[in-house]
Amino acid sequence: MDSSMNQPFFPKEPRTTLFAVEQVVTELAQVRKAWRAAQQRSNEPGGRELPSRDALTKIINDLRGALFPMRLGPPELRQESEDFYVGHTLDTVLHSLLGQVRLELSYAARYQHPTGPELQDEAVRLVQKFALALPEIRRLLDQDVIAAFQGDPAARSVDEVLLCYPGVLAMIHHRIAHVLYNLGVPLLARIVAEISHGQTGIDIHPGASIGAGLFIDHGTGVVIGETTIIGERVRIYQAVTLGAKRFPTDDEGKVQKGLARHPIVEDEVIIYAGATVLGRVRLGKGAVIGGNVWITHDVAPGANVSQATLRHEHTD
Amino acid sequence: MDSSMNQPFFPKEPRTTLFAVEQVVTELAQVRKAWRAAQQRSNEPGGRELPSRDALTKIINDLRGALFPMRLGPPELRQESEDFYVGHTLDTVLHSLLGQVRLELSYAARYQHPTGPELQDEAVRLVQKFALALPEIRRLLDQDVIAAFQGDPAARSVDEVLLCYPGVLAMIHHRIAHVLYNLGVPLLARIVAEISHGQTGIDIHPGASIGAGLFIDHGTGVVIGETTIIGERVRIYQAVTLGAKRFPTDDEGKVQKGLARHPIVEDEVIIYAGATVLGRVRLGKGAVIGGNVWITHDVAPGANVSQATLRHEHTD
Amino acid sequence: MDSSMNQPFFPKEPRTTLFAVEQVVTELAQVRKAWRAAQQRSNEPGGRELPSRDALTKIINDLRGALFPMRLGPPELRQESEDFYVGHTLDTVLHSLLGQVRLELSYAARYQHPTGPELQDEAVRLVQKFALALPEIRRLLDQDVIAAFQGDPAARSVDEVLLCYPGVLAMIHHRIAHVLYNLGVPLLARIVAEISHGQTGIDIHPGASIGAGLFIDHGTGVVIGETTIIGERVRIYQAVTLGAKRFPTDDEGKVQKGLARHPIVEDEVIIYAGATVLGRVRLGKGAVIGGNVWITHDVAPGANVSQATLRHEHTD
Amino acid sequence: MDSSMNQPFFPKEPRTTLFAVEQVVTELAQVRKAWRAAQQRSNEPGGRELPSRDALTKIINDLRGALFPMRLGPPELRQESEDFYVGHTLDTVLHSLLGQVRLELSYAARYQHPTGPELQDEAVRLVQKFALALPEIRRLLDQDVIAAFQGDPAARSVDEVLLCYPGVLAMIHHRIAHVLYNLGVPLLARIVAEISHGQTGIDIHPGASIGAGLFIDHGTGVVIGETTIIGERVRIYQAVTLGAKRFPTDDEGKVQKGLARHPIVEDEVIIYAGATVLGRVRLGKGAVIGGNVWITHDVAPGANVSQATLRHEHTD
Amino acid sequence: MDSSMNQPFFPKEPRTTLFAVEQVVTELAQVRKAWRAAQQRSNEPGGRELPSRDALTKIINDLRGALFPMRLGPPELRQESEDFYVGHTLDTVLHSLLGQVRLELSYAARYQHPTGPELQDEAVRLVQKFALALPEIRRLLDQDVIAAFQGDPAARSVDEVLLCYPGVLAMIHHRIAHVLYNLGVPLLARIVAEISHGQTGIDIHPGASIGAGLFIDHGTGVVIGETTIIGERVRIYQAVTLGAKRFPTDDEGKVQKGLARHPIVEDEVIIYAGATVLGRVRLGKGAVIGGNVWITHDVAPGANVSQATLRHEHTD
Amino acid sequence: MDSSMNQPFFPKEPRTTLFAVEQVVTELAQVRKAWRAAQQRSNEPGGRELPSRDALTKIINDLRGALFPMRLGPPELRQESEDFYVGHTLDTVLHSLLGQVRLELSYAARYQHPTGPELQDEAVRLVQKFALALPEIRRLLDQDVIAAFQGDPAARSVDEVLLCYPGVLAMIHHRIAHVLYNLGVPLLARIVAEISHGQTGIDIHPGASIGAGLFIDHGTGVVIGETTIIGERVRIYQAVTLGAKRFPTDDEGKVQKGLARHPIVEDEVIIYAGATVLGRVRLGKGAVIGGNVWITHDVAPGANVSQATLRHEHTD
Repeated sequence: MDSSMNQPFFPKEPRTTLFAVEQVVTELAQVRKAWRAAQQRSNEPGGRELPSRDALTKIINDLRGALFPMRLGPPELRQESEDFYVGHTLDTVLHSLLGQVRLELSYAARYQHPTGPELQDEAVRLVQKFALALPEIRRLLDQDVIAAFQGDPAARSVDEVLLCYPGVLAMIHHRIAHVLYNLGVPLLARIVAEISHGQTGIDIHPGASIGAGLFIDHGTGVVIGETTIIGERVRIYQAVTLGAKRFPTDDEGKVQKGLARHPIVEDEVIIYAGATVLGRVRLGKGAVIGGNVWITHDVAPGANVSQATLRHEHTD
Repeated sequence: MDSSMNQPFFPKEPRTTLFAVEQVVTELAQVRKAWRAAQQRSNEPGGRELPSRDALTKIINDLRGALFPMRLGPPELRQESEDFYVGHTLDTVLHSLLGQVRLELSYAARYQHPTGPELQDEAVRLVQKFALALPEIRRLLDQDVIAAFQGDPAARSVDEVLLCYPGVLAMIHHRIAHVLYNLGVPLLARIVAEISHGQTGIDIHPGASIGAGLFIDHGTGVVIGETTIIGERVRIYQAVTLGAKRFPTDDEGKVQKGLARHPIVEDEVIIYAGATVLGRVRLGKGAVIGGNVWITHDVAPGANVSQATLRHEHTD
Repeated sequence: MDSSMNQPFFPKEPRTTLFAVEQVVTELAQVRKAWRAAQQRSNEPGGRELPSRDALTKIINDLRGALFPMRLGPPELRQESEDFYVGHTLDTVLHSLLGQVRLELSYAARYQHPTGPELQDEAVRLVQKFALALPEIRRLLDQDVIAAFQGDPAARSVDEVLLCYPGVLAMIHHRIAHVLYNLGVPLLARIVAEISHGQTGIDIHPGASIGAGLFIDHGTGVVIGETTIIGERVRIYQAVTLGAKRFPTDDEGKVQKGLARHPIVEDEVIIYAGATVLGRVRLGKGAVIGGNVWITHDVAPGANVSQATLRHEHTD
Repeated sequence: MDSSMNQPFFPKEPRTTLFAVEQVVTELAQVRKAWRAAQQRSNEPGGRELPSRDALTKIINDLRGALFPMRLGPPELRQESEDFYVGHTLDTVLHSLLGQVRLELSYAARYQHPTGPELQDEAVRLVQKFALALPEIRRLLDQDVIAAFQGDPAARSVDEVLLCYPGVLAMIHHRIAHVLYNLGVPLLARIVAEISHGQTGIDIHPGASIGAGLFIDHGTGVVIGETTIIGERVRIYQAVTLGAKRFPTDDEGKVQKGLARHPIVEDEVIIYAGATVLGRVRLGKGAVIGGNVWITHDVAPGANVSQATLRHEHTD
Repeated sequence: MDSSMNQPFFPKEPRTTLFAVEQVVTELAQVRKAWRAAQQRSNEPGGRELPSRDALTKIINDLRGALFPMRLGPPELRQESEDFYVGHTLDTVLHSLLGQVRLELSYAARYQHPTGPELQDEAVRLVQKFALALPEIRRLLDQDVIAAFQGDPAARSVDEVLLCYPGVLAMIHHRIAHVLYNLGVPLLARIVAEISHGQTGIDIHPGASIGAGLFIDHGTGVVIGETTIIGERVRIYQAVTLGAKRFPTDDEGKVQKGLARHPIVEDEVIIYAGATVLGRVRLGKGAVIGGNVWITHDVAPGANVSQATLRHEHTD
Repeated sequence: MDSSMNQPFFPKEPRTTLFAVEQVVTELAQVRKAWRAAQQRSNEPGGRELPSRDALTKIINDLRGALFPMRLGPPELRQESEDFYVGHTLDTVLHSLLGQVRLELSYAARYQHPTGPELQDEAVRLVQKFALALPEIRRLLDQDVIAAFQGDPAARSVDEVLLCYPGVLAMIHHRIAHVLYNLGVPLLARIVAEISHGQTGIDIHPGASIGAGLFIDHGTGVVIGETTIIGERVRIYQAVTLGAKRFPTDDEGKVQKGLARHPIVEDEVIIYAGATVLGRVRLGKGAVIGGNVWITHDVAPGANVSQATLRHEHTD
């Protein structure tokens, strides 16, 4: 076949085309080739190695049904057949997830043979652990739901909260993504987090550790960074940032990876809308952070920080 | 059948499974059981009682087509057949809505028989009223569209505004959700509002009263609370919050439900991006609130409030 | 046919209906008629003239696959058949786009015959130019991807960035929308921009000129106005506004169209979260704008502006 | 609402339409009205009372999967999760079937209230009996599969037979349809039979009684009438008719309903292609009927009837 | 663009592919080129000119709903909204049909410009006539339904007949196809007929003229030729052929087109299963043709022809 | 996990269910277990091993498009992009086919490891050969199309024939199935043949050898057996059987597999409707077999056999 490949593919007669598709195809192939050269990627034939956002969207959607069958499962489901539905859905969804896990593992280990039996065994073990974590995920989410119900005077029932609140939707994605992150498939975890970010405007990095009973109200614009640690029964409003300071650098001034660079938020803290908390600061238990406040230092347990108090401090 | 139900369901031979699906199913059933016990829910067989977000997404999409057939209806529609399309779509959509209304009413009245004829009659009456409100909804939306066209110098036509602007999309959902809220199906109303919130980043509680000709520009991060009252021809930019103060409590210090706790915004007020207005304050007719301003007191009609003026006040 | 059209359409017998659909249809027809009269639109039979958001969503999705076949194309694609996939997809997508372009051109020229051959020729020429711009779009996007990878310490690979980051998704849409805007189909361009806005919370007007290597991190709440000019390798965080001042009016006090009214951001500027830059100001090369800062004046190259420095200035 | 119903529905202005849709709609309404008058049907508003062929197609397809999960179920199914799949599928499919049964029962009892609780109870009982018959249906089908495997020298495996043979497909439908027929929903039974007829060209009336192990080879053109009785291990080839004679009339010469008018075929009979057997004749055990033979009399057990033997008889 | 077309399309480096797709593509292109040369077809760029079977399948399905809304329309339809459904469906379906008609007309007139306004006008006129024929089609089909109900002792209701009987399904297709055939789009007519043939095994050429009240029982294997004329209230059983004799040639021995070469079947004739009637013979009013009989001569009105009578004749 | 598997799966409380789903699930599991025991099948966990009819239906549909892109490909395809479409479609379809081939090979070799690399290599080789056979398949089909066009006086064009004629549809399936049969995947071949049988009523065993230019008119009821050999330019009408005699047995009276037991039909033979040819007889070149004739002996080249001639012979 080699020699024929050296020949021009298409017949040589000139032809008039409407949109110059062939020319554009050729130029796009050249751009891809340049990219692959710059990225030191292979130009060899082979299949796609990357997980698929669409596949994960479906996986998460089915997991939501399996976790909350009578509320997020299929409309016609009856309680007497919950277990059948849950079992069949889990079986399907775990096999789909296995495929995506295999893709990330083989992507992470490019020059190993992607269908190697060891990689397959590793992927199976990983999905097994994920499956066994589901009951605990549900337990945590039940507490998030109760926190939202108790935290919002407008909430009428725990079911309304589960069905409607973007903060709860974000936590379903986060608790799944966080388990994937800890199991060693950070790309899948990130895709799950971004699916939620796109739907809710709430951007939680899958690395963030979040205790039971987090309630995020309204949520649009919330950002929670990778090394953030949040305790139990915390409440957060829209546009709150729990971020890193500008320069988490090492002694040589280089940006450090993996450094703990985001806040620690202790139990029962409340952070009102638009507040910004930057760096590895600690917000003590039960502290209340006012709206639009800018925090880069520790806050004592029980303290109440507002713009007024801050202005006062600064004008001192 | 009772006695057989006491027997183990699955055969007793051990078997090796890939993902321990049966174990996870069992544990998830236990978590659900604990939840139902804690929430004092029945563990009896029975069908799902909750409305479906997917069903309402389809209902709203069809209603948008029925309200604006030549612009949001099917691409191949011709003006000569508008009425056929509108009639057929309404017929379908109102029956779907009837099903969802019945679910919410029966959910609200759990211990009444869910298929009782009275509940059905109540649901039909409610949907009839909703149907009759549609022409007025369209009239209000026409004014919202004109407001957006006049309020944005970049807008080229009323049709571009209707097709593209997230603020208009949010108002279509809100005007529908608000009617549902007033008719007594607040859960449906909330789902409709959250569908819009997810698509636009604009979070309007369905309880908010909004006059004709509201224009929300850009919109991401806007929050409008449940008891907000907005007059006519008001303009709001991105990240504006019309919220409650922290502690709307009664004499005994308990969070009060149903209290009027959000702002009143009179006609022709303009609120620039990032401004925060909290509590039952009144922004007088034609007032202009500057970007990022934080307001917790009344503003006089025609007043012009900016960060500079506020800082000045506070340093007094 | 005319005379029969004067007759009532439906038979005259009374009938009892469930939802009064006919009454609502009639009233909605009256509202539409009033609208068309007010907007001086024809009430004549005829087809829909407006482009379709659904059609453009599919077009953009397919273009994303054609631009990045092995990463955003179909999961089963193999590298050896990339060109076939790209060619077939382009052929399909350019013909779909042609249909939408024709709709906008005929909408823009209402009283010309919509199927006139000149309009068709114009539409073909426009789509040809669009097709030829695709390789350059891909080249720019490759630089945006590299900028995101280098700008975020949490990014693990260029592929993760392309698959996950909303800022990259927004740039794919913007670079396509900007070409459409310059080719004279601003309505299509705007729809493409709003599809991205809905998915990412990043609102970039298709008119904005943006150099290679823009990285928008987190992104929710970012607004970039129509006449903004951004240089190369700029970095922008969530909730940044590059907007117009309140009153871009002409000598007679009327809102001016087409005026350059948004900022110029030179190469390598960094703008942190929540900053607001308003008006035709210039941020000099390499300037750093701190979080939540409010800028309405030029900033010198290399300057570092934070709330502290600003407060200091103002309290002077 | 009554008075408004007396008014013409559409506005009275003449309009020019492309296809005279309104005229055709009016004329079709008149034809329907004439039909309803002739059939003494109500012209009252109300919903559709008839079962849906599409709904039954989906029901049968799902039942096939539940009966043979690893062979006709979803491709990704694994044996360890068979029971979950079977249970969830049955739950869904039996509820769909309940809806269709209710439609037929209410159609059969038009002037009773269609949502009456008695009708609902009757429908539930009927579906319960159907569900309990499924294991026996599977047992019979297993024998049909074995018969096909043994009867066709070209068959390579029992699985090939189940996957490919139209005769087996026809028997799956028939054994389901026959149970429905006996349970008192002959319209559903007939629809199921015609779904199979359309796919296989094999026309078995759901009333026919068929013993275990029937093998129909090729099958196109086979017709088996309502009162046919077939024993065990019978083999039938394409274009065989087991029909009624022309005139199954009573003493007064009127066509009799419900009369046993089709053949009895005893165990182990073979009927070759194109043979026609008419009337309540008996083909004795083990008889062999040759191709294209025309039979209107009993055939003795073990007899071998061919065209030659028949011609001989007739020329006698 | 011409010169670039002379260049090889694909890059020249050899590459190893899995399935030699490029080689197969090249060879298939050569076979197509040879075919087009042999058929004197253009090898020029251009779009598909042929109607689509899928498009017609959808058109017929929608027409069936529009003709019988409460029985073959959508399950949720209610009688009070029939006209809306019928009108909207007709509007959609007639425009789809217009597209297919335009394709056939332009195919028939290849060297005329396919989008010429005259062709468009002709297509519109044709579809207008088709639309106006629909009420008469419904009237005829009502009589076919009644004929089936009366002709089959097993039929329980006219509705069962309409829902289930393949003979009725075949007549719905035929009556539509016959109108298309007479309007001058024989290719569309033939596709409609073959859709029915595939579903029912009944092969009626769209040219056949068939009076009201035809009942085809069972139907598999029935063939009715192009110039057949059938009167009213005729009954036909499975595997009946109304065909042409072998040699409908002209004086020079060449096969003649358009010659009347199939039978004339007068009112109230009955033809039993497997009978074959060949040539332009006339079956007189009320004649009865027995099963498997072979007829190539006229049959007198009221005559009763069976195999026995024929054998008798032949042995004379 | 073993010990937990010994425990009853479902909780022990009695519960009342609507349809006794658990009981039916249990009984169905028992029937499956009995079947597997009788068939000596494993009851171990594991995935489905059988090919999927739905998957093959899609594969064949796509192959039809790749073989005849401008006539059976997507409606919007343009000739200038044929090769892109063909290449992309082949790439997709060959990979799907590879999956199905792997399933059949692993099914055929049950106790070998189903994902063994040798099996994969064998499957790839097989699909490579299949791909290379496609141009010849197209060449043969072009001759079948021409034969149909020339053989039917009613045919208006070669394109009508390709689009409409069930005989051509059957040949597309057969020529694909026959290649698969010869490559050693007879189960896939049989499924492809039965897909065609279901759509056309024409039952051609994939083993049959058929020369170029076969025309099957009308087709319903045609049966062509596994070892049939058909020459070039043969014409066959509906309900023709080319079958085996009753007893192709060996010396011990057992049914023999693989024996040549069906007819040989030489070039240019014509067989009219309903004729039956049984056994390894030879129909000489150019012979004409009349309608309904029954043949079990050789027929001389050019002979003309009709019922009359046969009757004459037999009465001798």
